[in-house]
Parts: sequence; C-alpha cells; structure tokens
Amino acid sequence: MNRRMIVHTLGRMLQLEAVLLLAPLAVALLYREPFVPFLVTAAAAALTGVALALVRPRTHVIYARDGFVLVALSWLFYSAFGALPFVLPGGIPHYIDAFFETMSGFTTTGASILPDPAVLPHGMLFWRSFTHWIGGMGILVLCMAVVPSLSARSIHIMRAEMPGPIVGKLVPRARDTAKILYLIYIGMTLVQIALLCCGGMSLFDSAVYTFGTAGTGGFAPVASSCGGLSPFLQITITVFMVLFGVNFNLYYLLLIRRGKSVLKSAELWTYLGVIACATGAIAANIAPLCATAGQATRHAAFQVASVISTTGFSTTDFNLWPGFSKTILLLLMFCGACAGSTAGGLKVSRLVLLVRMLRRHLQKMTHPRAVGTVKLEGKVVGEETQRGVTNYFALYALLLGGILLLLSLEPFDLETNLSAAISCFNNVGPGLGAVGPAASYAGYSAFSKLVLSFAMLFGRLELYPVLFLFAPSSWMRK
Amino acid sequence: MNRRMIVHTLGRMLQLEAVLLLAPLAVALLYREPFVPFLVTAAAAALTGVALALVRPRTHVIYARDGFVLVALSWLFYSAFGALPFVLPGGIPHYIDAFFETMSGFTTTGASILPDPAVLPHGMLFWRSFTHWIGGMGILVLCMAVVPSLSARSIHIMRAEMPGPIVGKLVPRARDTAKILYLIYIGMTLVQIALLCCGGMSLFDSAVYTFGTAGTGGFAPVASSCGGLSPFLQITITVFMVLFGVNFNLYYLLLIRRGKSVLKSAELWTYLGVIACATGAIAANIAPLCATAGQATRHAAFQVASVISTTGFSTTDFNLWPGFSKTILLLLMFCGACAGSTAGGLKVSRLVLLVRMLRRHLQKMTHPRAVGTVKLEGKVVGEETQRGVTNYFALYALLLGGILLLLSLEPFDLETNLSAAISCFNNVGPGLGAVGPAASYAGYSAFSKLVLSFAMLFGRLELYPVLFLFAPSSWMRK
Repeated sequence: MNRRMIVHTLGRMLQLEAVLLLAPLAVALLYREPFVPFLVTAAAAALTGVALALVRPRTHVIYARDGFVLVALSWLFYSAFGALPFVLPGGIPHYIDAFFETMSGFTTTGASILPDPAVLPHGMLFWRSFTHWIGGMGILVLCMAVVPSLSARSIHIMRAEMPGPIVGKLVPRARDTAKILYLIYIGMTLVQIALLCCGGMSLFDSAVYTFGTAGTGGFAPVASSCGGLSPFLQITITVFMVLFGVNFNLYYLLLIRRGKSVLKSAELWTYLGVIACATGAIAANIAPLCATAGQATRHAAFQVASVISTTGFSTTDFNLWPGFSKTILLLLMFCGACAGSTAGGLKVSRLVLLVRMLRRHLQKMTHPRAVGTVKLEGKVVGEETQRGVTNYFALYALLLGGILLLLSLEPFDLETNLSAAISCFNNVGPGLGAVGPAASYAGYSAFSKLVLSFAMLFGRLELYPVLFLFAPSSWMRK
Repeated sequence: MNRRMIVHTLGRMLQLEAVLLLAPLAVALLYREPFVPFLVTAAAAALTGVALALVRPRTHVIYARDGFVLVALSWLFYSAFGALPFVLPGGIPHYIDAFFETMSGFTTTGASILPDPAVLPHGMLFWRSFTHWIGGMGILVLCMAVVPSLSARSIHIMRAEMPGPIVGKLVPRARDTAKILYLIYIGMTLVQIALLCCGGMSLFDSAVYTFGTAGTGGFAPVASSCGGLSPFLQITITVFMVLFGVNFNLYYLLLIRRGKSVLKSAELWTYLGVIACATGAIAANIAPLCATAGQATRHAAFQVASVISTTGFSTTDFNLWPGFSKTILLLLMFCGACAGSTAGGLKVSRLVLLVRMLRRHLQKMTHPRAVGTVKLEGKVVGEETQRGVTNYFALYALLLGGILLLLSLEPFDLETNLSAAISCFNNVGPGLGAVGPAASYAGYSAFSKLVLSFAMLFGRLELYPVLFLFAPSSWMRK
C-alpha cells in the first residue's frame, strides 16, 4: 500500500473540510450566533490537514486497495471532525451522538438522535444539512473537482466512492467527469431552492430542505419534517427527491442533446415504474385514513419517493399506516434509486441486472447448451460484473444480519431493530416502531449508535471500502 | 416436455400414497377409532392413481424440466390427497386448513393451524407425523426406492428433489442410492424410537415424536410440544435433531468405514460450531430467566438444535426470551442444517461456499490477476456451481420479500408476519409473536394459509421445481 500517498491525500481532504466549515461559520455570523465552534473546528481541521499533507508521497501511484482505504478513512475523518461543532457549547452534549448525527449527514442517511432539531441554532442546522449536500455526490469526487494534484490515476478513487454496479467516466479524464457532475448538481440545487422560495419558504429553510433533498439525506430543520409544509412545497420536494434519484449520467446525456438514449434507459423506466406501482398500492391502502383520494395519493407519493430515493423526509407518521403499506416501504428501502445518483440502497440497476441474470439462469437449467447473454442499457454485461452483482447481494445480506444481531442487544422490538438496521444500512433515515418518522434514534445506546454509524458508512460506500479498512491484510507490511 | 411420462409417474406416486395411508388406517383400527376417513382417502388415491397410470408414456426419457415439474406436482398431489382424512368427520373442518397442515407435514415444516393437536384421534395424529417422515427423505426418492420402473434416468428427479448445492450419487445407480439412504433413515428412526421408549414414553408417542425428529418436521401430539417431557427425553431429542441435520452421505461413509473423510467435512464442523456458539450465546442471555445454568443450557441447546435443523419442536416459549436470543434463532432459521439431510433452510454448505466465494472475490478486487479457486470438502467448485449458489441466494431473497408482502395484508405486526414467512419458507414451523411456539397459525386468513403453504413447498423443493411449475413456458406446446 502507498501509505504516504494516503496520509498526504487525507491531509488535503481535511484542508478542504476546513474551507467547507466556513459556510456554517458565515451563517452563524449572519444570525449573530456563536461562531467559535466552527472557527475552532475549521482551525483544527486545517492544522491537522497541513500536518498530514507534509508527508510527501514517494510515488503518486494509487492501487485499488489504496483507493478503498483512502475513501473509507476520508469519510471517517470528515465525520470525526465534522461532529466537533455540535459538541462545543449549545449543541449535542455527547460526542458519540454528534458523531452519529454527522455520519448520518455525510452518508446522506438522515437518521437523527435529536427529538427536535429546532433547538439547534441556525449555524448548526445549516452545517447538519450541508453535510448531506457534500456527502451526496461524494467527498472525494468533490476533492478531485477542486484539487488539481489529485487527478492522476484517480479512477480508483471514483470507483471506490461512486455507487452502482458499473462506474464509467463521462469524459476521458476523471477530473472533468467530477466537474461536470458537480455542475449538474449545483444547477439542480439552485433550481430547487428558487422553487421553494417561490412557494413562500424562507431562503434559509429553502436551502436546508434542498440540501436534504439533493443529497437524498433527509435532515429537516423541524421535528415534523415536511409535515407542516404546504401541498405545493410537498409536491415540489417529491418531484426533486425523484429527480435526485436518477442517474446523473442521464442529465449529462440530456445536456449534450442525446435525449434518445435517456428514453431507452431500462433503469430509469423501472425506477419510475416501481414508484408508480408503490404509490398506487399505498394510496389505495391508506385511503380510509385520509380525507380525500388526492391527499392519500400525495402522502403515498411523498413517502414512496422519500424512501426509494433513500431521502427519509416525511409528511406524515407512516409508522401508523397499515402493515401492507409499511412492508412496501420497508422493501423499497432495500431497492434504493438509480446507480450514479446521490441515493443509497441496492440501486435499481443492480436489481434489474439480478432479475435478468436469474431469468437466464432458469433458462440455462432447462436448456444447458443455450448461450444467452445478459444485457443492460443495450450493452452485454460481462461475467465479472455479473459475479460482482451477486456477490454484492450476498455480502450485503450477511452484513445486514450481523448489524441486526448487534442491535438486538437493545431492549427494542424486532420491528424497531430490523427497520433501524435496514434504514441506516440503506441510508434512508427513519425506520418503523420506536425509530419511526415521529421518533428519533436517541433511545439507542452509545454502542448501538456506533454500530449504526458504521452501518451507514458501509451502505454509503457500498461495503468494500469499509471492509478493506478493517481487513488485517490492509495493514500488514509485506 | 414428456407430459405422458409425468402423468403416468404421478399415477404411480398416488398408488404409493394409497399404500402409505394403510399405516394410519391400521393405527385407527388398533385404537378402535373411525377408520373410514383413511379408507376413503386410500381408495380415492388408488383409483386416481390407477387412472393416471393408464396414460402410457411413448418414451421414458425425462429431461431436467420434466423432473422439476414432476416433483412439484407430486408434492402438490400428495398434500391435496393427504389432507382428505383430516377433513372427513372428526378432524379439521376447513379444507384449506387441512391442506396447510398436510403441506406443513410433507414439507417437514411443522407449522400448525391447531391450537391443541391433542383433540385429534390417534390415527390422525399418526398420519400427521407420518407425513413428516415420508417428506423428510423426499417422496420421489421413496418412490424410486420401491417402484422398479422409475430408475431410468432418475437422477434428474433426485436432483430436483434433493437439497443442497451439489447432488451426488453415493453409488452409480440412483435407485441404489435411494435404497441406501432409506435404510440409514429407517435404522436411525428405530434407534430413536427405542431410546424414547427406554425413557418411559409410550410406543405411540415415541413413534410420533421420532417421525417429527427424523423428518426434521416438528409436529408434536400435544400443544406444549416437548415442554412436558423429562430432561432425558429432551436431551435425546436434541441429539437426534442434530443427527438428522447431518448430511446422510457422511453416515454412508461411516458405514463403509471411511471415517477419516467424515472428520474432514467442513460442513459438519461448521454446523457443529454454529450450534455450539449459538447455544453458548443464548444460554448466557437467558440465564437470568432460568433456575440453573444447566437448565439454561438445556433449553438453549434444544431450541438451537430445533431451529437450525428446521425441526420446530420447543421445550419452552422462546417468544418470551430477550431480543438477542430471538434474533439468533431467527438468523439460524435461514442457516438450516447440512445439505443431503432432511432439514430445510439455506444449508450450511451453501453458506460455507458463499463465504469462501466472497473471500476470493475480495482478494480478486485487490489482486486482479490472482487465480485462486474455491474448494469445498477438498474438491474445486466449478464456476457453474458457484453461480448456482449466488443465484439461489438472490432468488431466495426476492421470493422471501414477495411472501412477506403478501402476508402483510394481515392485521399482524411485522415480527409475526416476517417470522411466519421466514419460518415457513425455511420449513422450521413456529415463528415469533402471534405465531410463536405457544401459538398456532390458526389466526391467518385462508389466502395467507395458501401463500404459506406454497412458501413451504418452495422451501422444501429449493425453489426451482415450483418456479418451473408456474412458468408459462412449461405449459406451452412447441
């Protein structure tokens, strides 16, 4: 492993976090709130960053394992430092709680230990939601877009951080790809902020809700999440949750006027189809609980969009819905949105691939000599990628079982523990039972909060980086 | 498809069921109970069997798909006819309930709709448990052992019915393999009956409990399952539940004095290791609830053996245990025992293979040029078998999600529905919550009982036969 390179890059990353911390600092100044927490944290991050960056790598070559370990470490350091402003006076008393909240922010989970986030000052609320926005597109992708020296061989880093079964570059240079992705991201964010402002929301709230939507995170500035918003605002957020769950490559194709390829995307149509079916089923199921069919559809669509995009906002306490609707939402948590979006979960393209592979497998069982290839988006999917998908699926199930087992030491019922494990692992946020949308994760022990923090990191980085971080073979000298 | 051959063989199978029904008929006569239900059912099965067998196949060739469809249909017919004695006077009033109970019997699940089985007469209790014993080793394997004409090309049938990732023949001819397996099965059954009788149990009860153990089924003649039995009897049943979960090939190897290969079996050691660890963890967890450490260990070992071997007996209401113990049991339901045993679940060898494949996958991610093969029991496992294991795993997860969704239309909580789905799908029997060991499946609707019946069949036949039965392509003429 190229350890010097990893330490050096970590230093650069922390310097960037110090810069990012200037945003909540400015907000705190603007609202005349204590800004020292941000100043201290920014200084700590900057100093540590400069110190680490002093380690000069002998070679700039980054191998696959280096990429994985670097990505996992970066996210851990970002959360460890990012939690500091909350712990300093006026925020969250315990560091583990603050770490959970920050990890939940960066991984765009949105699970909160705060029964009422409105107790936080504006600066902290802003930072909490800003972590969603930063984490949504990936912190290393951001670093690649702004730090010139990182571009060499950086595809290994992108591969380790970007979600989905196949990671492609839009343009030949990884750094340009990162820039294009960020420009699309910023553009869509600005449009949503503008629309929410048009709907009568303050600029601050618009920004906070938009960060939560864009990163598919789900932190809201109030305990009722989106429950108190007007139908216009709720519908706007519904639409943008769906939009941020779409593969960003499709937006790039639209920009370069290749709309036809967008219309052919199997992943997009499956994604939209699942949303439509789930909304219909839930709307019919909850109709007796709602005043009008329109209201039932609006609530159903919002919750479905929120869960499948792994955002985690809510307009109503779906924990009180009938079991059928709750089970649909639980299954959608696994599904997740499209690869190459800011969403978590298994990703629609992985599931599409899986179903196609299974279909071919069944054909082969009765026609052993049939060749039959598996295609996705018009391209033949190689054996190696197919194996990657099924192995991912199996690893994912084993890890989920392990997380559930560790959580079961808590005195909560199975519904609570299972939904907490599924929700955090898939970066959704709220679960069912005692961690439902009207409740928080405050009741869990510090141990369980750490377990769930790592579950979020496993989910956001798609398992492998965190596994390699923990693998003893990564740390042994050869 | 060779339909004539399928219909003809189905006829032969039903004739065999008519013969098997003579056993409960004899028991009913012995206890001077109404025997007409068994006589009528035996006659109906025999007549239908003769009629179907009149269809003469033009060719005896059986292809893979024929094997799958034949196996699925046989089990459906066996359950459909086997349910009749219960519906005729004095048993279970509704046919769907009786079908559920019989399917639960043949698939060795042991899930019951009877709050108190003691209300049934001896003949019915015997038939109910006898279905476990018949289903344990597979009804087609039984047919192959006793009906001479079925031996040609019958490996496709064995492959479709036998559990585990790799089906081998012990000896060159499939029919001889079937006979050897049945002789081992009968021998072990007789030993257990003798031991239970020595422990002071009546011959009838010994037979009923042994059928439940040997088939890893779990129907007991009383509502308290094994709760009222003496520690000696409980320990005997614990040991035999573990023994019937071992791959029967190992017993054959012992018989032909190749004990060394038995000691090298990775599956066996993993199976025993999991039992030891789970027993230790649960015993420690439930110690505060028990009088002595010995009692805690006995209850823990019994429940662990019962769940991992997918038997489903219980000595205590484990639904009242702490969440940690319940979660371990829930995870063990997935695990199941060894391939080639009478148990359900994913099978230990599949999980061992999966973990080894994942380890190799992780190695390959950092050393792309590494070759590295995956071995099981000293043999290199081919790519096709590996793909089979991961595909099975994925298909299994998707089907479980579907079953859960259909069950969620019931007014039960998630713990009940999820554990019912997992328990029936893995052929365990009792679940948690409202379907815990102290309760029954009586509260489910007829629709859900049918869903769960098919879940049991999916689980027992390892998915593919039932899938091919439902595949339209199996029924279209070419």
